[in-house]
Formats: sequence, C-alpha cells, structure tokens
Amino acid sequence: MSYLGGLFSTVFERRFARKVSSDAEGRSIDDLSRDLLGARGEVSGTTLAQLILDRYAGADADAKRAFFDFMLRDLEIDPVEIVESLKSYKDAPSKRTYRAYARASEPQRQELLRRLNQVRGGTERLVSMRDDLLKMMRADPQLEPLDVDFAHLFASWFNRGFLELRPINWSSPAEVLEKIIAYEAVHAIDSWDDLRLRLQPADRRCFGFFHPAMPDEPLIFVEVALTRGIPNSVQKLLADKRDPIEAEDADTAVFYSISNCQSGLAGISFGNFLIKQVAADLSQELSGLETFVTLSPIPGLSKWLQKQAAPALQNAAVDAQAAYYLLEAKRDDNLPVDPVARFHLGNGAAVHAVHAGADTSENGMKQSGGAMVNYLYDLAEITTNHEKFVTEKTVAASREVRALSATLAPGT
Amino acid sequence: MSYLGGLFSTVFERRFARKVSSDAEGRSIDDLSRDLLGARGEVSGTTLAQLILDRYAGADADAKRAFFDFMLRDLEIDPVEIVESLKSYKDAPSKRTYRAYARASEPQRQELLRRLNQVRGGTERLVSMRDDLLKMMRADPQLEPLDVDFAHLFASWFNRGFLELRPINWSSPAEVLEKIIAYEAVHAIDSWDDLRLRLQPADRRCFGFFHPAMPDEPLIFVEVALTRGIPNSVQKLLADKRDPIEAEDADTAVFYSISNCQSGLAGISFGNFLIKQVAADLSQELSGLETFVTLSPIPGLSKWLQKQAAPALQNAAVDAQAAYYLLEAKRDDNLPVDPVARFHLGNGAAVHAVHAGADTSENGMKQSGGAMVNYLYDLAEITTNHEKFVTEKTVAASREVRALSATLAPGT
Amino acid sequence: MSYLGGLFSTVFERRFARKVSSDAEGRSIDDLSRDLLGARGEVSGTTLAQLILDRYAGADADAKRAFFDFMLRDLEIDPVEIVESLKSYKDAPSKRTYRAYARASEPQRQELLRRLNQVRGGTERLVSMRDDLLKMMRADPQLEPLDVDFAHLFASWFNRGFLELRPINWSSPAEVLEKIIAYEAVHAIDSWDDLRLRLQPADRRCFGFFHPAMPDEPLIFVEVALTRGIPNSVQKLLADKRDPIEAEDADTAVFYSISNCQSGLAGISFGNFLIKQVAADLSQELSGLETFVTLSPIPGLSKWLQKQAAPALQNAAVDAQAAYYLLEAKRDDNLPVDPVARFHLGNGAAVHAVHAGADTSENGMKQSGGAMVNYLYDLAEITTNHEKFVTEKTVAASREVRALSATLAPGT
Amino acid sequence: MSYLGGLFSTVFERRFARKVSSDAEGRSIDDLSRDLLGARGEVSGTTLAQLILDRYAGADADAKRAFFDFMLRDLEIDPVEIVESLKSYKDAPSKRTYRAYARASEPQRQELLRRLNQVRGGTERLVSMRDDLLKMMRADPQLEPLDVDFAHLFASWFNRGFLELRPINWSSPAEVLEKIIAYEAVHAIDSWDDLRLRLQPADRRCFGFFHPAMPDEPLIFVEVALTRGIPNSVQKLLADKRDPIEAEDADTAVFYSISNCQSGLAGISFGNFLIKQVAADLSQELSGLETFVTLSPIPGLSKWLQKQAAPALQNAAVDAQAAYYLLEAKRDDNLPVDPVARFHLGNGAAVHAVHAGADTSENGMKQSGGAMVNYLYDLAEITTNHEKFVTEKTVAASREVRALSATLAPGT
Repeated sequence: MSYLGGLFSTVFERRFARKVSSDAEGRSIDDLSRDLLGARGEVSGTTLAQLILDRYAGADADAKRAFFDFMLRDLEIDPVEIVESLKSYKDAPSKRTYRAYARASEPQRQELLRRLNQVRGGTERLVSMRDDLLKMMRADPQLEPLDVDFAHLFASWFNRGFLELRPINWSSPAEVLEKIIAYEAVHAIDSWDDLRLRLQPADRRCFGFFHPAMPDEPLIFVEVALTRGIPNSVQKLLADKRDPIEAEDADTAVFYSISNCQSGLAGISFGNFLIKQVAADLSQELSGLETFVTLSPIPGLSKWLQKQAAPALQNAAVDAQAAYYLLEAKRDDNLPVDPVARFHLGNGAAVHAVHAGADTSENGMKQSGGAMVNYLYDLAEITTNHEKFVTEKTVAASREVRALSATLAPGT
Repeated sequence: MSYLGGLFSTVFERRFARKVSSDAEGRSIDDLSRDLLGARGEVSGTTLAQLILDRYAGADADAKRAFFDFMLRDLEIDPVEIVESLKSYKDAPSKRTYRAYARASEPQRQELLRRLNQVRGGTERLVSMRDDLLKMMRADPQLEPLDVDFAHLFASWFNRGFLELRPINWSSPAEVLEKIIAYEAVHAIDSWDDLRLRLQPADRRCFGFFHPAMPDEPLIFVEVALTRGIPNSVQKLLADKRDPIEAEDADTAVFYSISNCQSGLAGISFGNFLIKQVAADLSQELSGLETFVTLSPIPGLSKWLQKQAAPALQNAAVDAQAAYYLLEAKRDDNLPVDPVARFHLGNGAAVHAVHAGADTSENGMKQSGGAMVNYLYDLAEITTNHEKFVTEKTVAASREVRALSATLAPGT
Repeated sequence: MSYLGGLFSTVFERRFARKVSSDAEGRSIDDLSRDLLGARGEVSGTTLAQLILDRYAGADADAKRAFFDFMLRDLEIDPVEIVESLKSYKDAPSKRTYRAYARASEPQRQELLRRLNQVRGGTERLVSMRDDLLKMMRADPQLEPLDVDFAHLFASWFNRGFLELRPINWSSPAEVLEKIIAYEAVHAIDSWDDLRLRLQPADRRCFGFFHPAMPDEPLIFVEVALTRGIPNSVQKLLADKRDPIEAEDADTAVFYSISNCQSGLAGISFGNFLIKQVAADLSQELSGLETFVTLSPIPGLSKWLQKQAAPALQNAAVDAQAAYYLLEAKRDDNLPVDPVARFHLGNGAAVHAVHAGADTSENGMKQSGGAMVNYLYDLAEITTNHEKFVTEKTVAASREVRALSATLAPGT
Repeated sequence: MSYLGGLFSTVFERRFARKVSSDAEGRSIDDLSRDLLGARGEVSGTTLAQLILDRYAGADADAKRAFFDFMLRDLEIDPVEIVESLKSYKDAPSKRTYRAYARASEPQRQELLRRLNQVRGGTERLVSMRDDLLKMMRADPQLEPLDVDFAHLFASWFNRGFLELRPINWSSPAEVLEKIIAYEAVHAIDSWDDLRLRLQPADRRCFGFFHPAMPDEPLIFVEVALTRGIPNSVQKLLADKRDPIEAEDADTAVFYSISNCQSGLAGISFGNFLIKQVAADLSQELSGLETFVTLSPIPGLSKWLQKQAAPALQNAAVDAQAAYYLLEAKRDDNLPVDPVARFHLGNGAAVHAVHAGADTSENGMKQSGGAMVNYLYDLAEITTNHEKFVTEKTVAASREVRALSATLAPGT
C-alpha cells in the first residue's frame, strides 16, 4: 500500500501530494523532518507531515527508536544559544530579543510535533507515537526528556476548554461503543449485551470526554448508576436481573467506574474535570439528585496488609482495615498509599463510607478482601478538602469512617 | 451585573462557583491569577479562570494595562533559574532535570494563559485580550514580549489540524453571516441583500475556517466566484444583474476576497491553508474546474508610483505599471513591496495577468488606478514557486506579465 | 432551461431520466398523468412525477386551469362503479370487495397527487399547486371539489405526529429567517435588525412547526415574549430600547404573534398544537413560568362598532367596548364575530383582560381603537372551556372582563 | 405502570394529561375512540390518542380483537349515507356536497387512525397494531377490510417523498445496528463481529430507508458488495478472511441482500425505490461503477422441480434447471413462480446469469440445489423491461441464460 493513504481524498490533493512525495523518495524520515521545519514546510507542510507520519507508522521498533533519537539529539536545545539569547533579551527586552530567546529555549522537536499535527488525523497519530515512546522508555530512560516535550504539548492541546463532554448511550455509534468495551478498566464488559446493561436502563448513564481532533475516540469515560441511597455492593449495583428505577426517582448518582482510554495520554489528567462536569450536567437534568458519590475499589489494601505486623490489624474486620488503611497508610511524601484514594481526595472528595463484602469478585476479594469505599463529592467542601489535602496532606473523612479507623489506632 | 456570568449554567456549578467567588472577594486579579497557578487552581481552576476573565472584561484600560504589566513582570522568566536548571539538565539529562529546565525556561504567564483557557469560551476571551494588547502595544512597545507568548500559544491552539473548513451559505446561521458582513475587508458588503448576492447564486461560494472552541466565529473566510475563463473586472464579477451560470459549467474558480476576522489572531496565518483546502474541496465537487486563480487588489501601487521619478513609468499604461510594480518593486529585504503579492507569492502562486480598469470603485482607482491582478494557483508549480520565492526571492510570473513589465525596464 | 431540474443530481438518475423524458416528449401533461397512474408509473414514477411537476410549474394560468379541469373531470369518481362495488362489498364483505369499493369511492386524482408526492420536493410543489387552486377558486367555485381532495390529503400528510417543533433564533439558517420576515402577519418585521430584536434578546423566543418534506419552510410560527406580569401594550413589549430581563426571572410567557406561512395550507390547522407544545417546552426549560397568555389584536372591533346603533355602546370607553364585543358579538352560528377570538376560544383559552391604548399603531387604532386582549391558556381549564365553547358556544372570560362587558348590557 | 407513559415529558403536559385521563377513567377504549373523533378530540386530541394507544398496548388478544371489531362494525361506512351524499353531489357539485360525500364514503376508522397518529411515536404504535391485525387475519378473514384501511393510510404516510435514505455503517447508532442483526432475512448475521464484516470493510455498504416519524427504525435495508466483476458465489462474497478491495477500484455493485424490517408494513413496497436510489448514490460517489447487479437466491427452484415429471429436466445440470425455471415456470396469471424473480423483474431488472454451487449453505442446497442468480439493473433497459413484464409478462434475460434454458425446452 502506498504512503499516501486515505488522507488525500481529492484529485487536487493527490496531484499535489504526488509531486511532494516523489521529491521525497530516497530521503530519510530525518531529512523529511528537517524539510518540514524549513522553508518547504510552509507550503508543503501537510503533505510532508503526512509522509513522515506514514513512514513512522510503517517503521519497525528500531527505526522508531532511531527517529526518537533523532528528535532527542538533532532537535535538542543549544545551551550556548539559550544563554546568549537570554542575555540579549535581558539587556534589551524587545519583541525581537524575546522571540529569539523563546525560539532558542524550546527544542525544535516541539515545533516538529506541532507541524506534524497540522494533518487531519495527526493528533491521533502523535498520541499513538507517544504510546510507543512510553513503552520504550521503560527499558530506556534516556528517552524521558523527549516525553516531557510530548506531555507539554499534549497538555496544551488537550486543554479542558477544548474537550467536549458527550453522553454515551445506546444511540452512540458502534465505533465509539466498541471502545467502551475495550477500555473499561474497572469492571470488565464481556459483550455487547453486557454493554447494553450498562447503557440502556433508565437508571444508567455514561459520559466521556472527546477532543475535536479525535472525534470518535473517547479520552476518558465514567459510568454512573442512579440510585436511591448510597450503594454498598457493586455486584448488586450491576446485577443482570435488577429492576431499574426511573431516573427522576433517584436521589444519588454513583460514579462506579472511571476509565482512561488513551495510553498515549498518560499523565494528562481530565478525570477531575469529568466528574465535576458530569455531576453538574446530571444535577441540571435531574433535580432530585442530592448526593454525588463513588463506589470505588481499594486496590492497594491486601498488599499493604500483608506487610503489616500488628495482630490487631490483621485480625480486624475488613471494613475497619479498609478505613484504617485509607486514613493512615501513607507513602514517604505523606500522601495515601492507595492510588484511587489519591485521585479522589486530590479532587476534593472525602472518604464517606467503607463496606465489607462490596466486591465479591475474584479480583475484588484478592485486592481488598471484598471491601469497597464511597468517596463523597460534596460541593460545599470540595475546595477546602482539596486545599487541605494538597497543603497539609489531610484526608477528609466522615465521622463514621474516622471512628472505624480509630478502633485500630495503635494503643487502642 | 454579577461576576458569575452565563457560564455557570447549572445549580451545581453555581453553588460551587458561589463558594469560590465569595472566597475571591477582596482579592485582586493578580492574587487570583496566583491562586490559579497554585494548588487551588487544580480543583477550582475553571471557576477561578472564569472570575479572572470576568474581572478582566470589566476592567478599564488602566487596569488592563496593569494586568499586562503583572504578567510581564511578576510572571517573567528567571535567568538564574534557567541557567542553573539548564546546567543540571546538561550534566545529567533525565525526566526530572529536563522538566525543571522546561518549567524554568518558559515564563509562568504561559501557564496562566493555558489555565485561563480551561473555561468554555475562554479561547474567545483570550483572543480578545490579545486584541487589547496589540492596540496598547502600538503606543507601548515594552509590552511586546508578552505578545510573543500569546502568539506562541495561539499558534499551537489554532494549529491547522484543529481547524474546520465549513461552507458559508444562505443556510448558515444568521450569527455567522452577520460576521461575514462585518468582516469583509476587500469588497464591502452593504446589507443582507448584498450578502445574499455573494452566497446564494449557483456560481458563488464562500468558505471559512472555524475553531471548535469558537464555533460561531469564523477565523478567516474566502469568497469564490465560479466562472468560464479568468475574469478581468471585479465590478462585472459582482454585478447585481448578471446571469449566474451553473456550477457544473464553470472551468475557473476565482478567489476574489479573503478576509481575516479576528484582529486578536493577527500574525497567526491560516490563509495559505484555506486557499489550498478550498481548491481541493471545489475540485472534488466540480470536476470541470481547471483553473484556480485570484482577482486581487494591488493596494500599494499608487503610493509607490508617487515616489518614483522615471517619467516613462509615470506615463505608462496602468497595466504595465502594475506588472512592473509587482515584479520589480522590492523592500529592503528584497521581498515585494505589495503585501497581497507577498501573501500569494509566499503561498506558491504566480503573477498571471494584470488588468487595467478592473476595479473602478473609488478605492480601486485611488489605490491602484483601477488595476487588479490574477494570481494563479497551479498545483504543479506551487512548491517550486514557493521555495524559489523564500530562498531566492524570485517572483513567479507568466510570460505576458513579464513582457509587460520589461517594457518599463530602465534602459528600455 | 430543461424540464429535468436539480432533482436528478446524479449521472445515474440523469441517464434514466433522459430516457423517460425523451419518451415523454410530445405527450401532454394529462397523458403523463395517466402514465403515472398506470403500469409505467410503478417503475418510472419519480421521473414521471418530476416531469409533470416541472410542466405544471412552467405552465401559464390557462394551462394550469386546464390541468385542474382534467383532474376534476377525467379523474372523477364514477357513481355507477361506486354503487356497484358498494353493493358487492355489503353482500360479501372481503378484502377484494372492500378494496374494490375503496378504489371506486375515491377519485383517481387523489392517487395522482400521492404519486406526484413521491418526488423529493414534491410536497412543496403540491402546496404551491393548491395555492394556485385557492386563488382560481375565488372566481371559479366549480373547482371547489378538487380542493376538498387536496385538503384531505394534506390533513393526512401534515398530521401533527409528523411535524417537528423547532426554535427559531439567531442561530437559525438565513433562509429560514428571511421567511419569518416575509410571513410575519401581525406586527410587521421591517429589516434584519428588526428581526434580531424579536429573536436575540434573552427574553424573546420564537418557535415554528416544520414538516420533514419541507425542512426549510416553516409552516406556522409563534413569537413569544418572556415578561414579569401580563403586558398591556404591544408598543412597550416591542420597544427598541427596552431592558431585556433574564429568561429565568420571567413568570409569564406572552404569545404576541402567530403567523401562518403557507397559503397553500389554508384550513389545515396546526395553531392549537403549536401554542400548547410551545407552552409545554417553555415550562420545561423555565420553571419560573406560571402564566401563559396572548397579547392579541381585536381585528373586528371597529368595523362591528360602526354597525351598532346603541349610543351607550358608541360612547363607552374602548376597553368596555372591547369586552362587550368579545363576549356578546356573535355570528349567525352563535360563535364570536371576531376571528382571533374564535381561534383562541376554540383552543380552550379564556378572555382574560382587555386594554385600551395597547396598540397605538395606525393599524391598531383603525381596527380596534387601540384596544387589545389577553387570552389566557390555563391548563386546568382548557378542556372544559373548549368543550363548552364547542357544544354550548359559551365564551370563557375572567370576572373583570365579564364585569366590564356587563356595564354595556342592554338595559343597564 | 401508569397509562401516561414517557410521552408526556413535561410538567405542563403531565398536568394537562392528568386531567384528561382522570376524565377517562371508567371509559372504555371504544368510548375514548368516540371522544377522539368528537369535539373533545380537537383540543385533547394528543392526550386521548395517547390514552387509547396505551390501553391498546396493555390489552390482551381478546381485547385487541374486540377493538378491531369495534372499528370494523361501529366505524363502518353507511351505504345509505354514501348513496344519498353521492346523489346530492352529482346533482349539485360543490364544496359542501363533495365534502359530505367524501366524509360518508370513507369509514370513520380511517379518521380515528389519523388522529391516533397525532401522538409522537404514534406511527410506530399503529404499525405494530397492524402487525397484530395481520396475524389475527390469518385465522379470521373477516378482519380483512380493516386491513385495507390500514394499508391505504400507510401507503400515504410512507410515501417515497417522505422517506430518507441513510447509509448504515459502523458509525450508526447501536440501536439501529441491532435491528440490522435482527431483521437480516437472507444471509443471517450471527453476532456483532459478523455485522462488522458486513459494514466496516472498504468494499461493503449498507443503506436503509427511514421515516421521519420512526427515526431509529429502518423500514427496509439493502446490503451491497463492491467487486471487480460479477460474483458467482455468496460464500466467497461473504468469506471471513477475504482481502477487501478499495471502493474506488470496484466496477460492480452487488445487491446481495434486501430485508424488510417491519412486518406491520407488509405490502407497502419501497424495495424498488431503494435499489434505484442506492444505485444512484453509489454511482455518484464512485465513478468507476459500471454494473449494478444482484446475487439472489432462487427460493422456489427445488420445490418446483419436485413437481416436474420430465426426466431431461430432472437430470439436467442445476444451472440449466435454474435458467429454465426462471424463464418458463409460471403461475396461473402467467407471472414467474419465483417470488424473488417477480420482485426484480417487476422493477425492470433482467435475468443476467445463473450459477451452480453459488450458495452451498444448508438452506441454499435445500431450496435451489446451490444455484443462485444475478439480476441486472441496466438503466437503459429498466423502463422497457418493466413495461413488457407488466403488460406482456415477458421475462427479460441475457442471451446466455436464454440459451441455457433452451437446452431444456420440450422437444429439444
């Protein structure tokens, strides 16, 4: 198959692309990248960018690695130039001197990535390129600085203001829905029938963030159950044969699963925006909703417990263990050990209740002895909770959870 | 009017916003900006950003100027930090050291602008903020470095890959069409009836670029006439009482007007993409189209002529004057004096033909003695033309135009 | 221009249409109609229908009249066939006998109209055809039975279940908006700027019914003002320089103008559905709305007054005259003389209040001495009001209006 | 569950509906139908219609049958009234007399069905009601006249001009796609993965007709394969592991499956329009397409063969049997025995080629010994073919098929 894929959909474009690509024959991906950064890039930019992305897509691991090296070495910042241009700017601040500094201080690979992104579909290809990079980085930390540039650009491109929140339901395109099946990370979806149970009943909702440049690719999605009262068992919540309630009768919205979809966007966070936006939209639609809460796993509990010596802790009821773990188990930086806890507490939520026997699946028993937790999103408290968590590392929690945990406090 | 405008559309959001904004009372826009850059910004980001943008919108010129100063001075780069972090990175390249350098090398105002952009509608507000800045800059060049940061971010946000080309026609929303009336910069549109003449006949088209974050605001638009043969008079082209032809019968697409819409996006160029994309789309739809050409003003001709001494030039026919001017009148950097010429030649077009009596309007007579020019977009030549123009400053032109100009060459 | 207009958009269709239309040359519109009703109509139906509609559109008044005659005479019911098939059916009811009766009892022109409607755009052409018919009928009542067939089919095609209610606002396509300007029948819209005042302020709404087969043609539209309290002056309501209120602050929705758009749909009523649907949609969106009311002209008041002898009536205040007229002035069938009153009372509304000086325009002064009336749509009363109006001809009215009218009662 | 289902979505509507439905308590579905036909129907029409449709939906078979009886008997035509009104009209044709006749000649149940259709969603409910009727009719032919009324109205409502052709692909809503799985009648679709193989490859297309009042319900759909050359095996055509070709490279469009979706629309034909419209749309999109052909089953072949005595026929090769059967096997009315043949020949197609071993599935072997047939849609011949088929019962066929069949002609 030719390098000139489906992107050049018209005769006009193809004639033009043919010229550019015949010029490109025999030139390496590095050469083409330099062309794209140079004069030719201004007028043949999209065609060159397309050629480079196609070359990259067809490359093997070694060639990809070589391209990353090229970006890292050949398109690197020049310390001398930085220092000189910085001096000139500071001596005589002006448009000219500051622009020169700005250009020098940023590696050319950032401009290359921006120009690759001119192509329709380019964003998706670059997200996939970063996914390759992240995988290679594990074995090869020298590549890490390159990832800093990717992450910097992605944070700008995937800015909250550009994201679109869309409901995902049984009227959504199949090509979106199959991604929900593929990406659900918390409670697996086995089949289209299973998916339908998550989307179609009147008391179920799903929402995702989408970016205009990747319109069929959810970036992250959250599944919501509308309930009366706060649930204490995910198996009951997701039971096949339950009686759905009318959405208007619900008083509680339960965020029971949040899944990131794009491994190439790791570290670019949208989750906190998503929960707040969904809570806002639901409360607009359903005036009866009073409580916004999660039903979350406690993925680190069992592993942490194994390392603890205190017999009181080992012998305690699982909900007390969970309460104690969520409130007291800390990393070196004094933040909670549990990653899900860090996420929700970092958003300003509070530990509201813990439940034994809440996830009796094999995985649930293994990771937390079946315990789960509700994090509460209380609008009146979110900001305060968040700031205390960030500045003082304080974990917000309900009186009940606090009491449960206290029964296991050393010296009790 | 309250600080909490229409953006907080739900009860949920309003309750939350009320809390944040009551905390914000008594704090200056600079304080709020620092909050937005700090820990509080992570959880209350959109509300803080909204507050800042509302404060800014309500501010007078002095307060706006003060805010620009704040960004320029307080959110400035720190040379010591840059040099130290650069040294650490070069001594021991790693994710940590490079990220520290990247953070230091970029002024915090860029991050502030990115966070202000988290709000829905934020992009439009920031474009308007830059418009203010550009106006103040004329009297106050000290502000120029701040504009470099705006331009840098906008180039990334308004990347070609994020823009959407949309036809603009009599089915378009009135709120878009009124902007076409307002922004048409070349041949003014006097009324809705006048607009209809530009959009509704079968041989007229209009296309604009839109950005997903500003869906009702065209960024730039081009008006196209479908003709048989290359036109030599804009008055004939736009005559009220002409007989439209069927689009299928046209062999030529004439780009007779290109207008930028957002003064706050000055210097962020989309025009070259626009023409090529429109040419591609039209050639897809109408297989009879063979020629893509402009009918363009020559805005600098009269002014330039006034400064010339040679009597031969002064007494020559206007089309010869125009040909000579377009080919020979250069700036110090050896690029053409004429700004429209620089734009189209820079896109890879060629000077194809000049016409006397082509624009007999008052403005046309005044700026160019009624002469106009066709720039030809020939796909087979665009890349070569562009590169020669950029590297050798060569102006591509037809034999006819070249001959016309030669009659006025000194020594002839 | 060819008979084969824009409807045959593809090469495939055109090749086919060329065959059918070359066969059609030399055949009259009556012959083509017979073809369409015959075997050929099954496979070449849309092409034949298109040919007939194009012939009709290009015909002069005499030819149109001749085509109506053809439908009326040649495609008429056959009494003998009706009576015989009816007898057969009654003697032996079966699918076969009933179908034979059904076919005989309905004139073939109905089937012709249904087949003409197979063409995309056919519905609009048939609505326009009926418009011609209605105009000719005024001078020529013999055509009336043909109109009964049109009306019968249109009532079925424009069934409420097929209509779509759409908001009309400043985001609507210009081609829809220009129709609002053209069709506004109550308070004329002079310009696009005037239109904007009716659509864009936060306290103004407009809604129209659309049919899927005529997607750019509103069938009927209603203009709504959101107010605090019930208005008593249309000039104040529509003043250029008023301060709009926030939609959320309104307690009253005022239907101040209802306009039919398609004269070819005369007598096919959607108005009552429109008001109720708009009231429902608005109450869903704006929970503060408590009152749904019109501000209506009293078009027949002055004319009626001129014919009255009683000096008490002639000398009374105009609001008392209006109240008396609306409650007591009746036609022979005992329904109100006033057509607007018949419409709203027939919908189940009540005469709520009358106002002197409410329409001080030239037309307002002329038709009703400046008086206007609010009809109240009170959901709890609509059904009862309607039934009493239809069965007992009772006019529902408020105590105040009743009292005002009573002051003029003979013998008072 | 309440009678007032999801259709009354707003408080406004619900308050109103409550009033009407509390009036309705204790009244039978027949009474409510009479109300709907009477004065009350004008103002409370949609609520009454909704109540009746809900009552019907909740009814058991006996109650449904009783409702059909009510429509058949109580809402029947009155012969005396018909004859009298017919006489009055013929004596003095006028709007009044013709309208009186029109009203009398049509049973009131038609008006009832039209009023039931005023409700949003009503069309779908009535299609389902007719489905019930068709099933009951099999055992109870007395109901047949009622079906004539349904069919008459549906033919008008589902007029070609109101239908929308939509592509069905992997971007279509899941709720539409699951219906494709459910309704595919020719070559069953087993799973979502199987469906994807029919929709997603570049050389596969699917199109359906939709009605605006049933936007998520396909009425009929056709599956198309884009190929090089005319295929002779459905197993090869639908093979899992085939290499798709680019759509642009195809010269042939193969309609390999057409399925009706709504049993309640039996006898309302859209199939011929669908094939022609799809052929037109495809030829517009893909200029390389030259041949439009089916790959069709021959469902009646084996059954017919069993009844034949001639040993030459019994012993012949299956393709010759198929050719002979398609050309010579006729019903009493001289039309082909084969129902699929009648459909395509009736559309103006020709028998183009027959293939042995073309459907080796169990069903294919059973119904036709594995033979299949290509019907050719040649635009230049469609009209002539159709007319000869309808008037002279002539079967259009290629020379090859004709020759094959001739080898089996008696006396050969």
